[in-house]
Amino acid sequence: MKLGVCYYPEQWPQSVWRDDARRMAAMGIRVVRIAEFAWSRMEPRPGEYDWAWLDEAIAVLSEAGLQVVLGTPTAAPPRWLLDRHPDIVALDAHGHPKGFGSRRHYCFSSPAFFEASRSIVTAMAARYGQHPAVIAWQTDNEYGCHDTVLSYSAAAVERFRGWLAARYGSIAALNEAWGNVFWSMEYASFEQINAPVGLPTFANPIHALDYRRFASDEVKRYNRMQVEILRTHAPGRDVLHNFMGFFGEFDHHELAQDLDVASWDNYPLGFTDTVRFLSDDERLRWMRSGHPDISAFNHDLYRGLCKGRWWVMEQQAGPVNWANANPAPLPGMVRTWTWEAFAHGAELVSYFRWRQVPYAQEQMHSGLHTPDGRIDVGGTEATQVARELARLQPGPARQARVALVFDYAAKWMHDIQPHGTDIDYYGEVFAWYSALRRLGLDIDIVPASRESFSGYALIAVPALTVIDEALVGRLRASGAQLVFGPRCGAKTADFAIPEGLPPGALRALLPMRVNRVETLRDGVSIAVQAAGQELGVAGRWRDFVEPLAQTEVQARFADGQPAILRHGRTRYFAGCFSPALLLDQLEASARDAGIGVQRVDDGLRLRRRGKLQFAINHGPHSARVPAPPDTQFVLGSEVLPPASVAAWEVAAPDDAA
Amino acid sequence: MKLGVCYYPEQWPQSVWRDDARRMAAMGIRVVRIAEFAWSRMEPRPGEYDWAWLDEAIAVLSEAGLQVVLGTPTAAPPRWLLDRHPDIVALDAHGHPKGFGSRRHYCFSSPAFFEASRSIVTAMAARYGQHPAVIAWQTDNEYGCHDTVLSYSAAAVERFRGWLAARYGSIAALNEAWGNVFWSMEYASFEQINAPVGLPTFANPIHALDYRRFASDEVKRYNRMQVEILRTHAPGRDVLHNFMGFFGEFDHHELAQDLDVASWDNYPLGFTDTVRFLSDDERLRWMRSGHPDISAFNHDLYRGLCKGRWWVMEQQAGPVNWANANPAPLPGMVRTWTWEAFAHGAELVSYFRWRQVPYAQEQMHSGLHTPDGRIDVGGTEATQVARELARLQPGPARQARVALVFDYAAKWMHDIQPHGTDIDYYGEVFAWYSALRRLGLDIDIVPASRESFSGYALIAVPALTVIDEALVGRLRASGAQLVFGPRCGAKTADFAIPEGLPPGALRALLPMRVNRVETLRDGVSIAVQAAGQELGVAGRWRDFVEPLAQTEVQARFADGQPAILRHGRTRYFAGCFSPALLLDQLEASARDAGIGVQRVDDGLRLRRRGKLQFAINHGPHSARVPAPPDTQFVLGSEVLPPASVAAWEVAAPDDAA
Amino acid sequence: MKLGVCYYPEQWPQSVWRDDARRMAAMGIRVVRIAEFAWSRMEPRPGEYDWAWLDEAIAVLSEAGLQVVLGTPTAAPPRWLLDRHPDIVALDAHGHPKGFGSRRHYCFSSPAFFEASRSIVTAMAARYGQHPAVIAWQTDNEYGCHDTVLSYSAAAVERFRGWLAARYGSIAALNEAWGNVFWSMEYASFEQINAPVGLPTFANPIHALDYRRFASDEVKRYNRMQVEILRTHAPGRDVLHNFMGFFGEFDHHELAQDLDVASWDNYPLGFTDTVRFLSDDERLRWMRSGHPDISAFNHDLYRGLCKGRWWVMEQQAGPVNWANANPAPLPGMVRTWTWEAFAHGAELVSYFRWRQVPYAQEQMHSGLHTPDGRIDVGGTEATQVARELARLQPGPARQARVALVFDYAAKWMHDIQPHGTDIDYYGEVFAWYSALRRLGLDIDIVPASRESFSGYALIAVPALTVIDEALVGRLRASGAQLVFGPRCGAKTADFAIPEGLPPGALRALLPMRVNRVETLRDGVSIAVQAAGQELGVAGRWRDFVEPLAQTEVQARFADGQPAILRHGRTRYFAGCFSPALLLDQLEASARDAGIGVQRVDDGLRLRRRGKLQFAINHGPHSARVPAPPDTQFVLGSEVLPPASVAAWEVAAPDDAA
Repeated sequence: MKLGVCYYPEQWPQSVWRDDARRMAAMGIRVVRIAEFAWSRMEPRPGEYDWAWLDEAIAVLSEAGLQVVLGTPTAAPPRWLLDRHPDIVALDAHGHPKGFGSRRHYCFSSPAFFEASRSIVTAMAARYGQHPAVIAWQTDNEYGCHDTVLSYSAAAVERFRGWLAARYGSIAALNEAWGNVFWSMEYASFEQINAPVGLPTFANPIHALDYRRFASDEVKRYNRMQVEILRTHAPGRDVLHNFMGFFGEFDHHELAQDLDVASWDNYPLGFTDTVRFLSDDERLRWMRSGHPDISAFNHDLYRGLCKGRWWVMEQQAGPVNWANANPAPLPGMVRTWTWEAFAHGAELVSYFRWRQVPYAQEQMHSGLHTPDGRIDVGGTEATQVARELARLQPGPARQARVALVFDYAAKWMHDIQPHGTDIDYYGEVFAWYSALRRLGLDIDIVPASRESFSGYALIAVPALTVIDEALVGRLRASGAQLVFGPRCGAKTADFAIPEGLPPGALRALLPMRVNRVETLRDGVSIAVQAAGQELGVAGRWRDFVEPLAQTEVQARFADGQPAILRHGRTRYFAGCFSPALLLDQLEASARDAGIGVQRVDDGLRLRRRGKLQFAINHGPHSARVPAPPDTQFVLGSEVLPPASVAAWEVAAPDDAA
Repeated sequence: MKLGVCYYPEQWPQSVWRDDARRMAAMGIRVVRIAEFAWSRMEPRPGEYDWAWLDEAIAVLSEAGLQVVLGTPTAAPPRWLLDRHPDIVALDAHGHPKGFGSRRHYCFSSPAFFEASRSIVTAMAARYGQHPAVIAWQTDNEYGCHDTVLSYSAAAVERFRGWLAARYGSIAALNEAWGNVFWSMEYASFEQINAPVGLPTFANPIHALDYRRFASDEVKRYNRMQVEILRTHAPGRDVLHNFMGFFGEFDHHELAQDLDVASWDNYPLGFTDTVRFLSDDERLRWMRSGHPDISAFNHDLYRGLCKGRWWVMEQQAGPVNWANANPAPLPGMVRTWTWEAFAHGAELVSYFRWRQVPYAQEQMHSGLHTPDGRIDVGGTEATQVARELARLQPGPARQARVALVFDYAAKWMHDIQPHGTDIDYYGEVFAWYSALRRLGLDIDIVPASRESFSGYALIAVPALTVIDEALVGRLRASGAQLVFGPRCGAKTADFAIPEGLPPGALRALLPMRVNRVETLRDGVSIAVQAAGQELGVAGRWRDFVEPLAQTEVQARFADGQPAILRHGRTRYFAGCFSPALLLDQLEASARDAGIGVQRVDDGLRLRRRGKLQFAINHGPHSARVPAPPDTQFVLGSEVLPPASVAAWEVAAPDDAA
Repeated sequence: MKLGVCYYPEQWPQSVWRDDARRMAAMGIRVVRIAEFAWSRMEPRPGEYDWAWLDEAIAVLSEAGLQVVLGTPTAAPPRWLLDRHPDIVALDAHGHPKGFGSRRHYCFSSPAFFEASRSIVTAMAARYGQHPAVIAWQTDNEYGCHDTVLSYSAAAVERFRGWLAARYGSIAALNEAWGNVFWSMEYASFEQINAPVGLPTFANPIHALDYRRFASDEVKRYNRMQVEILRTHAPGRDVLHNFMGFFGEFDHHELAQDLDVASWDNYPLGFTDTVRFLSDDERLRWMRSGHPDISAFNHDLYRGLCKGRWWVMEQQAGPVNWANANPAPLPGMVRTWTWEAFAHGAELVSYFRWRQVPYAQEQMHSGLHTPDGRIDVGGTEATQVARELARLQPGPARQARVALVFDYAAKWMHDIQPHGTDIDYYGEVFAWYSALRRLGLDIDIVPASRESFSGYALIAVPALTVIDEALVGRLRASGAQLVFGPRCGAKTADFAIPEGLPPGALRALLPMRVNRVETLRDGVSIAVQAAGQELGVAGRWRDFVEPLAQTEVQARFADGQPAILRHGRTRYFAGCFSPALLLDQLEASARDAGIGVQRVDDGLRLRRRGKLQFAINHGPHSARVPAPPDTQFVLGSEVLPPASVAAWEVAAPDDAA
């Protein structure tokens, strides 16, 4: 477990580099990421490279005992590349080209940009691939940031046609799979197919989904090109990409197959202010700490990308500049977030950024130091974490006993066909995640494509639109308690309703049929009842379920429709349950799975790493941690002040699989 | 009175057609609409027709004893037509062409599309025009759906110039009529005139209005082309178009002059969720039944298009897929809606659709059957209606005693110049309609262009911006009580303030002058008082009226401005009254007209057809119907459960004119 | 002090002109503005002028004893100019050209439009420049109305490059000043720079700011061209431009350097309904009178443009047509607004318009007369003012003792980098202005560029983002009490954080450092405390300030951060204070400055002109004016009814500097 920092030597006079490096080392920082936006300095003119400054920067850091992560600079293509190849830019859905003057203006499908990327990455990797200080490489940065996965350029559309031809083989097969007989949408050739935008009304949902699959594959293809170059020139170095939080525009599980490490950017206050699924009340309540599950959700997700290896590449160190409101974190929160990441298994937490830059787009984004170089609150707290880390190195993260299934294509299908304006895939999954966390549980967020689910005692599956027979087999083989939410198995891979109706292949585990669905406005809540008692309420989405075979109805909605169904180890929730109801029902599943639960509330959350049990208080009030009597705390104490963390060694046998 | 269904044989294997047809007949369905989106199957390649499948489909239906309505397929032009004529597509106000991949991408003004339409309609009509099973033809489908009346293509602009030349004769006349001296907007030739979009600020309102008139005429011209072909090849068959609810982008009264029957699409829950003029409270309250007046308003409107002949071509049969939230109807509601349509005089109610299609854009739109072919709630309720119809055939609808004037151009003028963001023509007219319905009255919604208003005892005229002398004459000749709302007579046909100020020609009936108007924010309500008592409140819009001659002020606003004026049989309401005040004041007018009123509240509504008096309960609670003691009910009973209908024979003499 | 009116002879039959002129004179009107939209009548075809009608119009007015202000007609370029030069139009940020059919479609950077403007202005000025009745010339009208300052035409972008070259000298200097090393945004030549629009994310803020500076300069350049022509042909006549309220898209202080008089358009109800910074409650409360400070703010601003010479060129005379809701003013309000303008020092109040025009875009905009020529409420009230003016001519406005600094570039910087969605420059400045007015004070709104601040006892400086050493020197030299608000000195002229952090150069007056800032959602309020007492609350924006040297912390936020700092005569408020707290704190500053305050509340406001003290009641209730006992009122009386004005002579010595 190490601390890192993001540093931009090109933005500061060379005269301060050495002192910066010295102070980084003194603070306890071990790893420095550099160079990921510096293309115009590496290659000031086409084909003319200037490595002198970067040689020097790496040397200075290395000499101070720091390790370096090099980012390829392709997220910020230089101006001269546009003079040569105006067609490298992405086009928006209205056909407007993206302009130069910020970053990420490129189109993943542009052949010219692909070649230009290959050149700069090759040149950079050839020069630094085997540099002893360079321990890892980051490809590009934040693929898709600023809504840049989807492009509607001529190159993209042409490659989409090829992608369709490869997927479907013949236009007849595509017409059949897409159901193009509907509204006379039939094609005579792949060349007739355009992007699913600019139409009078909805595109065929499979048309839209295939464009998103294609675009996701384009990102993967582009990244693989960079990875292959790095594998050649930088053998033995970790290759990673730096992902974002709550960003699902391409399939991260797919892309991560080419990486060694997944890293991501943790801005808890920015997310709390902007993610769609939180209410204004929640935004206000957690404005200075972040919602208690907002970082953890992503930690647990990214831990699942590269066999458990993950970093926080950019850790919020003070107010950000990009949310609707940008408050300061509670004092202590930067330290707490850092420990939280370690509790969830991070190898590295790297702060963004060493020093706030006083000019250009991010001038209002704070860092560990103020623009004039004095240490800021985040810097002080990072220093404290470094001191604590020196005496406290917990073991590796273990597989949790609870798995929550997350699927990028399910997100796209929700986006394309929400069927109700309040339906949001992240919101549905987050509600389940948050309920499980309120039970004090450790959770692995895993892809539906996971090869084996063995080792899990409880598998939670909200809103997984496509469930095929193979997945059913793997889930069954796990022996775990299974809980499915509404909309599970609602679609085929071709974005159609499955034969025999939803939940399709899932019926093998859970004999039932969803005869219809409904969505409900905000403000509608329907009671869920059992044995004459109201268990709670549901809203937003309801499946009208007909139980088949021995499937038992455990609770019903007020109008008599089944609300909770059960068959053996498998449960189905037929609506979007309120947080309280979801908590109760997931607790019942956890108990059936033999998992001990420990309800926590307000801002307290628990997380185990190795022999250490962590408790994190996100709330504005003190909280008592559920430690055994006479616990010796290695961090914090039984009564946790706001924005702080406690940890203690667990004597009991490890309860993981 | 018959039941029908919408069916898409091209979307299902031929092997199931015969069974489908058999079950339709068994259910009590008599009429099947087919083919309206099947152009790519009728003409798979340019000029190559494939009629075999359609021959077979019609034969199968016919052999099962079913009658067929054939839709021309022009709402869904095939992909190959775009290869040949890229210019058939409509352009939006920003100049972006509409893309292929859904439907209705065509421009009504495109010569190439006009010719292609002529060809396919001629070919289809030539083949099936005299087929004995084909009882009617539908032109295209839902003209204007997805905001497709207005196109800004080069062809549209060129035809607009011609339309202007024909209307005004000379550019000098246009400049004069439009008032183009204002802001130096004068033209030297018709060729200088463009569409009224993309301007720095508002277009001249008459410029905008003329573009909408032109676009409406283009729809009429296009439809007439289809009708003429059908008249030639399908003599004696009813020709109809299938309109939508609350859709006023072209003049339906005008277009319907070329038709035999008007049909429309009744989706009460979708409308309730999406029409602009309902509040969120109303949307929640009526989410499972539809607002009690939402279907009836359109029934009464469409009954007025073709001398009383009208159908419901698409009847909601379960949840739809296109509203912001898509709840399931109350059990019984599909039956109730069907009877409601018959109560209002429908010849046919045709459900959408026989079976939910599991793929493409409408996969989440329910039908009478689930995608796997099992009967759904709507199918069961339709079956019940069919059984009930077998023993109960009320006579024809009669002219009502109350007329409500609806005018498409008035809607356009409200859209172009709302003068306040909360002003909405449908909302104003609907408020009056709803108040009259709460009085238990039957209503005819009639055009301002109606030749004679004789037979009406009360004529209600809300928000009719243009009132000319001829209309004043026809209204006067009716001998009816007349009630006008704010903004009546506010404009000339050239979208100017009339000489001598509003209400212009109406002054002959009602001596008064509107010296100024004001609009008010949501939340402003002004008391209306008479004889020291508050009668109620008004808001949104106020006319400042000066009574002339013997016009009496019956009530005043709190600031002393006249609120209710009366002259002989004519009343004027000088503001937008709250529902309660509107109810009271329209009741007073009805009483003066000698019309017996029967206040109903909550979700109960009354409607007479022939000798049958219907009572319909839209509410979530039981309701007592206002039937005489000892009534023998032919449907339902005195106490109506939610979502149900009662009917009884009326012994009293028909109270119509 | 004179009354005027806006008149459009071209819109009315020549036969009524003489009677109109006679009635104007009889009403007490002395000045008539004409011609500012009549290009198509002055030059019906390219190069063919028709002056006959205008000769006659001027003659008619002149013969009635009226003086004429002539507007150049360039705000409404005629259609034929577009045939010749399609490139005169502005392009929006998406590249869409603005269409013909309203006004202001031109681009300030278009060479062809520049030349066409030169021609028509020259021709007009040559003909009427020395006409004895023409006392003044207005250039164009309402520069920038309908969001027309910014254009993205090729001509604009090319001129922007030249502007940058002139400003920065070399591309290296620009790269350095802009910080283009960030995100590889470096340029190799000025030709590579485009407008800061259409980018994937934020533009570099200095890029955006320079485009706005450039656009502002373009307006100034265009106006100067007109002014120079007028100076040549119309010697001795006042040259003015007619500005708008709350419109800050170009630098009015800069442009006004070329003018003799500043005039503006006072529509209090329209502003109250539409300015961003008022709440819905405030809009409702003041819907019929306008917010009590909404006109005065602009009066005091425009008085500062041309050494105190200013007019109201368009005074609201009844309901307008362009707000979200358009209510009628309270009876008496038109008179009250007129007197309010005179109280603030206006030389002329000119009503818009003589007679409501019944056609085209402004047909719903009222005037002094109804469209049929009868006098309307506004006309009656104007007549009353004219009678009152005949006996009451107060002296000139004096310099106030309180200055409020307003800066157009600060507005642009807030727009470009609000750092929180609720932050609005006008809103911040208006809050301070309103608090000072609630203290009964007269205020001068002055530019930061003012040469000397001497004579002021209190200078209030909210949200002034750039403060340089020279300004610090001028402020210090004034000897006044100084109050600064949050964000003062936050940026350099190159839109960067100053060295040593904010408040930059201001530190010389106020030793302190802003280490970080935060923005807060609506609903967050933080207590401000001193000596254990809560003084009030703050929100929206907070500076985290570290006091240096002898700077005293007078109050702190609840979390201990300094809230009010003081050093000698200088105070700093470190957050956006609630109205009540702002009132208290500004009162303390005023007392320290030796200024007597007189708190007024509700809708009452005070204003001195010459020896007359005015009190104006904007509220819906009567108010008691703070006049000494036994005051002899020259207007009104001690108890002021709603919508009225009182005035009395002040015996006390003038309290100005």
